[in-house]
Amino acid sequence: MNTRIVAKILGIVLLIEAALMLLPMTTALLYHESALPFLYSIAILLAAGGALNAIRPKSQDIYAKEGFVCVGAAWILMSAFGALPFVFSGEIPFYIDAFFETVSGFTTTGATILTAVEPMSKGCAFWRLFTHWVGGMGVLVFIMAVLPASGGNYMHIMRAEVPGPTVGKLVPRLRETARILYLIYIALTAMETLLLILGGMSFYEALVHSFATAGTGGFSTRNASIGGFNSAYIEIVIATFMMIFGVNFNIYYLLLLGQFRSVFKSEELRVYLGVILVATVLIAANIASQVGGFVRGLRYSYFSVTTVVSTTGFCTADFDTWPEFSKWLLFLLMFIGGCAGSTGGGMKVSRIIILCKSFIHELKKQAVPSRVQRIWFEDRPVAEETVKSVHVFSLAYILILLICGLVLSLEKCDFITSMTASLACLSNVGPGLSMVGPTGNYAFFSWWSKLMLSFEMLFGRLEIFPLAYLLSPPVWRRR
Amino acid sequence: MNTRIVAKILGIVLLIEAALMLLPMTTALLYHESALPFLYSIAILLAAGGALNAIRPKSQDIYAKEGFVCVGAAWILMSAFGALPFVFSGEIPFYIDAFFETVSGFTTTGATILTAVEPMSKGCAFWRLFTHWVGGMGVLVFIMAVLPASGGNYMHIMRAEVPGPTVGKLVPRLRETARILYLIYIALTAMETLLLILGGMSFYEALVHSFATAGTGGFSTRNASIGGFNSAYIEIVIATFMMIFGVNFNIYYLLLLGQFRSVFKSEELRVYLGVILVATVLIAANIASQVGGFVRGLRYSYFSVTTVVSTTGFCTADFDTWPEFSKWLLFLLMFIGGCAGSTGGGMKVSRIIILCKSFIHELKKQAVPSRVQRIWFEDRPVAEETVKSVHVFSLAYILILLICGLVLSLEKCDFITSMTASLACLSNVGPGLSMVGPTGNYAFFSWWSKLMLSFEMLFGRLEIFPLAYLLSPPVWRRR
Repeated sequence: MNTRIVAKILGIVLLIEAALMLLPMTTALLYHESALPFLYSIAILLAAGGALNAIRPKSQDIYAKEGFVCVGAAWILMSAFGALPFVFSGEIPFYIDAFFETVSGFTTTGATILTAVEPMSKGCAFWRLFTHWVGGMGVLVFIMAVLPASGGNYMHIMRAEVPGPTVGKLVPRLRETARILYLIYIALTAMETLLLILGGMSFYEALVHSFATAGTGGFSTRNASIGGFNSAYIEIVIATFMMIFGVNFNIYYLLLLGQFRSVFKSEELRVYLGVILVATVLIAANIASQVGGFVRGLRYSYFSVTTVVSTTGFCTADFDTWPEFSKWLLFLLMFIGGCAGSTGGGMKVSRIIILCKSFIHELKKQAVPSRVQRIWFEDRPVAEETVKSVHVFSLAYILILLICGLVLSLEKCDFITSMTASLACLSNVGPGLSMVGPTGNYAFFSWWSKLMLSFEMLFGRLEIFPLAYLLSPPVWRRR
Repeated sequence: MNTRIVAKILGIVLLIEAALMLLPMTTALLYHESALPFLYSIAILLAAGGALNAIRPKSQDIYAKEGFVCVGAAWILMSAFGALPFVFSGEIPFYIDAFFETVSGFTTTGATILTAVEPMSKGCAFWRLFTHWVGGMGVLVFIMAVLPASGGNYMHIMRAEVPGPTVGKLVPRLRETARILYLIYIALTAMETLLLILGGMSFYEALVHSFATAGTGGFSTRNASIGGFNSAYIEIVIATFMMIFGVNFNIYYLLLLGQFRSVFKSEELRVYLGVILVATVLIAANIASQVGGFVRGLRYSYFSVTTVVSTTGFCTADFDTWPEFSKWLLFLLMFIGGCAGSTGGGMKVSRIIILCKSFIHELKKQAVPSRVQRIWFEDRPVAEETVKSVHVFSLAYILILLICGLVLSLEKCDFITSMTASLACLSNVGPGLSMVGPTGNYAFFSWWSKLMLSFEMLFGRLEIFPLAYLLSPPVWRRR
């Protein structure tokens, strides 16, 4: 293990975080709030980051395991330090609560331990929602985009941080790929901000809610989330952007290049949009009598489906009060999540497609063993290794879901709460059902559950393997 | 597809079923009940079976697809005809109810649509519990054991009917293997019957409950299931035999041969017993305050754990009233189920072991790609194909569970009911939680749910692929 290069990169991550914290600090100053919580945090980040960054690695080699350890550790450290402003400001005095909230921010989950968010200062609220934006595209991808490559193979880092079964480079050079991704990300965020301002939101609220949408996070500055704005226009804009940010960003690059044919042919995109369409219609029909008609049902169901499938977690309606069938559908959508290479969480649409295809493949192979074909996806044969990795990922996903659910059952909550809290954190959705439903929150859990759920969110965002490797015995034994 | 040989074998299956029905008919006569329901059913079976058996196949070739179609169709037909006595006797007048009950019997699920079982005639009750015994070891395995092999490769049939990721022949000749399995099965059933009689049960009740235990079924002649006997001795005997029948029968063959070392080294057996031990202790501790002490808790938890892990479904305590943690543990045990090559259902312990090992394997491979090792299980490397098939099976299992759960949510029931009803049927356990808990039943579901659950039970018992292939388009297109 090349420990020194890992430490150095972690140092850069912390320095970048210090720089990012200047934004909420400026916000605090603009709104005549104390900048001290941010100033202290930045000082600590500079000290720690500077110390790590001063390490001189003997080699620049980054292999898969360095990539895993680097990404896993970076996300834990970012959250550990990112929680400081909440503690220093006294707005989330208990450190584990603040850690949970920050992990929830960076992993774009949006699960909150706050019972009311409106009293929060502008500076802290900005930081809280800004973490979604930072975590959405990935902070290491950001580093690749902005810093001159100091040699080494960063592909392993990108592979560990970008969600999906495989990572496709848009252009041959990795750094260009990272830049293009961030430019698309910034452009879409700016578009949403503009549209929200046109809908009557203040610049501040439009911006921070665009951060939270872009990262498919789900934190809001309103207690009633997006429902608090009481505007069909805002709901539709946000629902549509949630859907947009759940799409593989490669699609937008193809659109920019004018390759509409390739976009139209994308299996993942078609299935993703198909799932949203079918689920929206089914739920609208199912809730029609309860909310007063199919059209009104469509408004609520479109928002709820896009918020769940993109794993954002904004709310307009309390879907916990909906009929069982609608709740079940939303529960299933929580598993699926967004597309690979999007900011959304969940198992990802592409994996679900590969799983379904590999079932048919296996059935054929078992019944007629002589007929051996490969699985095709997006007009390409899928490598056996990728199929296997998709299988293992999916099974590990369900295993983590169930084990954490079991642990949560030790809390004073019902089966649906423990099951959906576990799923909503692992899939980075945020709200689940019952006690963690749209009107509930995660405040009532004890500290050990909050800590476990924090790691579950990290497992979901980093897609299990990097964090599992970081926490595995070989990493700690081989020093 | 060699349709003719498939039809011929199906004919033999129906003739065997006619012969098996002589037992409940004799019981009915002994208890001075009407034998007509059985007589009519036998007549129909003889006509249908005779007609099919008269077909002369052009070739004796049985390949994997013939094995799949044969086993899938045999189980559907056996259940369809096996339901007739219940309808003819008027004890379950509605055909789909009777079909559900018979599928539940043959698949050794034990889920019932009866709100009270005590009023049932002795003949029908015998048939109801006897179906567990027939289905436990498999009717096609039975045919292999008793009929002279008419050529053809029956291995594909055995592979499709015997549960587990791989089928091990005990002895080189398949027919001998089938005979040994049935002899062990009969001997263990006789032992349990004897022990139950010693505990004060009548011969009739001891016999039929031994049938239901041996098949890991779960039907009872008492409304309160085994709790109705109110005897710690009977509970412990049955709990222990449930555990015994959840073990791979190869283990008993090894014991007979005196190969104790191999038995002791069996990974699957050790994990199976370990799971039972840990779950029993955890649940006993969890319910201690509720049931009046740890020791009393042990009595209830030992029974409940063995009934769930062996997927039998007998009940003594209403575990639906237990704390959330205990319910969660039982919920997880429903997934696991018994060992491969046992009469138990579920995903099977060996598959869970292979899944856990393949996670560690994949993690190593992703972090250090150069290090490629194979997965070992029971002192042998596991073929890549087997690992893949275990993955696909497990994922399909969860997919079926969730889709059927979604459909059940259209019924008037809560999330826990729809989730655990789906799981309890797929894993062939029988009772779930909430409305389908130990004191509940499946009577309230509408006919289409009952039909779907019947197929879910068949999917669970036949381990998905044979039935999925039978229902897939190619089978019906290629005539």
